Amino acid sequence: MPENAILKVRAPATSANLGAGFDTLGMALSLYNVMTVRRLLPPGEFIPEVTGEGARELADPGKNLIIKSYLSACEAWGVENPHGFEMHSNNVIPLSRGLGSSATAVVTGVLTANALNRAGASEQELLRTMTRLEGHPDNVAPCCLGGMTVGCWDGSDLRYVRLPSLPRDMYVVVAVPDVKVDTADARKSLPDVVNFDDAVFNLGRAALTAAAWATGQWDMLSWGMDDRLHQQYRSKLFPGGGVIMDRVRDIPGCLGVAISGSGPSVIALSRGKPRKLAETMCRTFTEHGVDSLFFVLEGNVGGARVEALL
Amino acid sequence: MPENAILKVRAPATSANLGAGFDTLGMALSLYNVMTVRRLLPPGEFIPEVTGEGARELADPGKNLIIKSYLSACEAWGVENPHGFEMHSNNVIPLSRGLGSSATAVVTGVLTANALNRAGASEQELLRTMTRLEGHPDNVAPCCLGGMTVGCWDGSDLRYVRLPSLPRDMYVVVAVPDVKVDTADARKSLPDVVNFDDAVFNLGRAALTAAAWATGQWDMLSWGMDDRLHQQYRSKLFPGGGVIMDRVRDIPGCLGVAISGSGPSVIALSRGKPRKLAETMCRTFTEHGVDSLFFVLEGNVGGARVEALL
Repeated sequence: MPENAILKVRAPATSANLGAGFDTLGMALSLYNVMTVRRLLPPGEFIPEVTGEGARELADPGKNLIIKSYLSACEAWGVENPHGFEMHSNNVIPLSRGLGSSATAVVTGVLTANALNRAGASEQELLRTMTRLEGHPDNVAPCCLGGMTVGCWDGSDLRYVRLPSLPRDMYVVVAVPDVKVDTADARKSLPDVVNFDDAVFNLGRAALTAAAWATGQWDMLSWGMDDRLHQQYRSKLFPGGGVIMDRVRDIPGCLGVAISGSGPSVIALSRGKPRKLAETMCRTFTEHGVDSLFFVLEGNVGGARVEALL
Repeated sequence: MPENAILKVRAPATSANLGAGFDTLGMALSLYNVMTVRRLLPPGEFIPEVTGEGARELADPGKNLIIKSYLSACEAWGVENPHGFEMHSNNVIPLSRGLGSSATAVVTGVLTANALNRAGASEQELLRTMTRLEGHPDNVAPCCLGGMTVGCWDGSDLRYVRLPSLPRDMYVVVAVPDVKVDTADARKSLPDVVNFDDAVFNLGRAALTAAAWATGQWDMLSWGMDDRLHQQYRSKLFPGGGVIMDRVRDIPGCLGVAISGSGPSVIALSRGKPRKLAETMCRTFTEHGVDSLFFVLEGNVGGARVEALL
């Protein structure tokens, strides 16, 4: 922990949906945003300093999602006069790319509210609060708990199961094009009704992914991560989206490929080091006129970690 | 094995769907149909004798699903001049009640084709053949493999994961009303399109059931077995269907309740002996003018068992 810090929260990136598992499945990735609280301030006073992604915008306390989530959680739990604080965020997770950066802010804010004000919230209550703020559990649950999670939300409560992390010999390639997709826009692109058969297709694949993940049958993911509900719409929202998954799917070692969250990042799960997968993904973006970078990440990842010196 | 028998196949009843998991999830139950092959006959000659459920109808070789499945499997595998046989079936699984009696016939016929003709089919090939004959994997997979299965079928191939059986302190109550629901009619009652939100609801619950089952988190089943795709239509096809699940759901010990397959049987999973559940279910049927019986079954069940003396 840095000198002079009284609280440090490290929260992982996450990839939601994993194809069929819309709003339900999500996994934690080995890429972390870190927030430190340097000193407490009187209630209502917040001084955020941000380096990395979103440095300028998030330095406004009124727009900083960690602070907003902190205050929402304090209000939900009836904390009177919650501490203000001076904080520093170092953000390495790209913003608005489908990698759960907003979920890290929500998770960090809620865990900070719990720790700084000794609220004593249970894990269930923490996750309920996080999901209420985020709207769905598929990023906040794996961000908070690590590994892969299956989460269902009914608008006021949730149920979730944490499944194991990926084994160490598996990697996740994330290709991140230099375009942003707004999550709200991505939701608007979805239809109101779908074919019954497509609904059945997805529920079967989502259940297959959950069962395969729980039992380590990774070869099932090529089927389990298939989707008929949302990716055909979302792939139109970014250059190359219409072809990139088909190009990657059959590369040896590729276990499954999907749009990460609402995009535009694309993730592929791989057995062994996935250099070829990564290069194919970035080349596809280049051919469609957009720059991109890639991360090779581990899925062997615990949840958000809180260190407190109070 | 009875005297004079050269092959015996014991195949369990199954309950498909488990609420959200339409055409995908299914579990084996401790109620068995048993078929014995008494002697081989020349190709094309079959003498079926049937006791129990369907005794009269199924004694016609042309209508006997075990024989039809046997011949289909032999044809699919290129078996030349497959043996005919004289057989005896003892059927205790009620017909057309949503308990997988037709799946037991398909599984028995395919396993018999493999054993009598030394076809050497792999487990994957056996299940592919069974699913092709049945049309979906949610009964044949748990009938063949036991426990609970997650199965996806694309019309020509399938992927499946077998999950553990229920623990021994859990029971499955099956209430069987004295009305039949034709599976084809039950399919016709379903809509062509569904709300996007309902599709997401079901995929989340189906994945939650799979994850909960794999990790033994049985308290999740009350959410996981919830459904918005098919039960509201199928519950109209039999007396009492509209109210029975709501009456049972909140009885202490009830972990989840669903229409079994396409109905009209209703199953409830229970921790501890479920007398009250069973009585409530049968009383509901009585109030709606239909007789019923119940079974208290175990879910701690292996798959179809073949004993051969060839």
